[in-house]
Amino acid sequence: MSAAYSGWPDRRLLDLFGIEVPIIQAPMAGSSTTALALAVIEAGGLGSLAFAMQPPDQVRAGLGDARRATSRPVGVNFFCHARPEADAVRDAAWRQRLAPYYSELGLATGTSAAVPADVAFGDEHCHVLAELTPEVVSFHFGLPGEDLLRRVKATGAKVVSSATTVAEAVWLEQHGCDAVIAQGCEAGGHRGTFLPGSAATQVGTMALVPQVVDAVGVPVIAAGGIADGRGITAALALGAAGVQLGTAYLFSPEAHVAPVHRRALRAVRDNQTVVTDVLTGRPARAVINRAVRELGPMAELLPDFPLPSAALAPLRSAHEASGSDDFTPLWAGQAAPLGRPLPAGELTTLLALESLARLDGRQARLGRT
Amino acid sequence: MSAAYSGWPDRRLLDLFGIEVPIIQAPMAGSSTTALALAVIEAGGLGSLAFAMQPPDQVRAGLGDARRATSRPVGVNFFCHARPEADAVRDAAWRQRLAPYYSELGLATGTSAAVPADVAFGDEHCHVLAELTPEVVSFHFGLPGEDLLRRVKATGAKVVSSATTVAEAVWLEQHGCDAVIAQGCEAGGHRGTFLPGSAATQVGTMALVPQVVDAVGVPVIAAGGIADGRGITAALALGAAGVQLGTAYLFSPEAHVAPVHRRALRAVRDNQTVVTDVLTGRPARAVINRAVRELGPMAELLPDFPLPSAALAPLRSAHEASGSDDFTPLWAGQAAPLGRPLPAGELTTLLALESLARLDGRQARLGRT
Repeated sequence: MSAAYSGWPDRRLLDLFGIEVPIIQAPMAGSSTTALALAVIEAGGLGSLAFAMQPPDQVRAGLGDARRATSRPVGVNFFCHARPEADAVRDAAWRQRLAPYYSELGLATGTSAAVPADVAFGDEHCHVLAELTPEVVSFHFGLPGEDLLRRVKATGAKVVSSATTVAEAVWLEQHGCDAVIAQGCEAGGHRGTFLPGSAATQVGTMALVPQVVDAVGVPVIAAGGIADGRGITAALALGAAGVQLGTAYLFSPEAHVAPVHRRALRAVRDNQTVVTDVLTGRPARAVINRAVRELGPMAELLPDFPLPSAALAPLRSAHEASGSDDFTPLWAGQAAPLGRPLPAGELTTLLALESLARLDGRQARLGRT
Repeated sequence: MSAAYSGWPDRRLLDLFGIEVPIIQAPMAGSSTTALALAVIEAGGLGSLAFAMQPPDQVRAGLGDARRATSRPVGVNFFCHARPEADAVRDAAWRQRLAPYYSELGLATGTSAAVPADVAFGDEHCHVLAELTPEVVSFHFGLPGEDLLRRVKATGAKVVSSATTVAEAVWLEQHGCDAVIAQGCEAGGHRGTFLPGSAATQVGTMALVPQVVDAVGVPVIAAGGIADGRGITAALALGAAGVQLGTAYLFSPEAHVAPVHRRALRAVRDNQTVVTDVLTGRPARAVINRAVRELGPMAELLPDFPLPSAALAPLRSAHEASGSDDFTPLWAGQAAPLGRPLPAGELTTLLALESLARLDGRQARLGRT
């Protein structure tokens, strides 16, 4: 397999991360699993453990498992949003908006008090990273503070984060990122946005990637709307050194995806997802369902991320129990219809071979997969 | 030059239109000129005359000029939206919203009564097409009625229209289009949308093109976010047989672009455009200016397309006279920052050579322009 993999035109990301295939499995908190990451890793890509807001002991356990299972490079991901501020007015407004849905199910609104785990990336996480030295540490929603970032880099890890604009990409490079993910608006899940901006001005992958490539010196990883060898080859043509795919891996059996979510992924069309903030408090792309349609897609007076999801959780559970996806966050990118239900390792190899065939092949093959 | 042009991997569009370079200059009503179209045509691409809503005698004159100037294939474009319905309530609401801006300039609101020319594509247009036989007839906002379309096709013209979703692409193929433009949400100017849909669910080029390619049998032309050889090569990798570029040609001296618009095009960043309906009544991508920011980007109770522009016109004129772009429709796509101020023929040749170099070249060249 290594021989077949010698044809990548751009080795910057391969050399930076120590991987064989310039494909990153996007960290997807709640959906990606250690098994998923390991399958991608063994196929030569970069698998990512999505730690999001998990406490240090869970990070130690999860990363330790992956470390023991493979000697290849491992990626880990953390969120680094500002801690949510309790706001009685917005909290009450949100509960009031949801009250009719609770009534409909005969649920008491008091049951919605559970707050999602939200441990800020901090000192203890740095200890775990120094101990278990993952090769790549990526962040979402910007970067942690200078001191924490210095400690992460001191472990030898390559640091990566997502940019949704050229300005964010430049900021990330200036603050020490070794590579930048250019996340186009097609991408599923949370927008990585961290500088002030509007959900209405989000930039598509086709326009964003070349502008980011022109603006930064570090390798650029394209994300958003990429699901097969055509998208990967296109991203490389735009100047990206590699790609990050999320939704494509949700179709793999190793992904932890609720049955109603899997059903939605199989059925969704190109124009049936939307960027919404009602599911968590931050803009994220999901399949349009009842919650998104009736509460959003964008809402005023929402509690800070990730607080809105707490009051939605009982609605989600009750609806899922009866087979309804009305209140499930159906994360999906716009290329979801191109998804293929393959084991993650097979999918990674197929994506690599599709891309290499297009890169190596006769030009006449470029027209169609 | 013809020899250098032999390297295109996909000849479907070249053979269909009888052109040498798979680049279409987008028709841009009000901005593209006969000189611009002819320059693209002479460089081997498909130049487009933007007739939009012009009456038949103007079409005859414009197309006749182009016919006399070149023996190569010529493209023409028409709008085929439903005729706007007069609606006193929405008209009054719109005038009321604009009243403060009129007051600010000391303009009487009565001056806003001018209605833009709006001649539906019809019988007389078909006569002109039969007489002057342009090789390619493209439509925006769907297609004209069956009988008119049959007459257009009977002239021997290849018929093209824009799809912003897979469903629209399938509809266009089923209704007789010889090629379909897949218009991603990055594109500047009017969305070609003609089936019911929401501005919030618009699909990016990277996700849209391969899904359209999979759904139709006719050649697909990629549009949106493409401005240089990187974008063209990427579009071909996605399975497109060619590309359509609009904003890139607004930088050419042959384009008819107000000085304030040129200034905005030079200054705009990747995330400073938005899809707005306040400028004309239909969703279109433009640089965010005062009108878009204060009236939109999307508005309720707007008069039908293209009526809102009538009441905006006096504001635009007055502001432009003092060097302000506050009320100018600053059409631009998200790749505007990649624009280069070259004559249209030179730009077309450069785009072709950039693309061919990437297609022909060593794989190592793929990483960077």
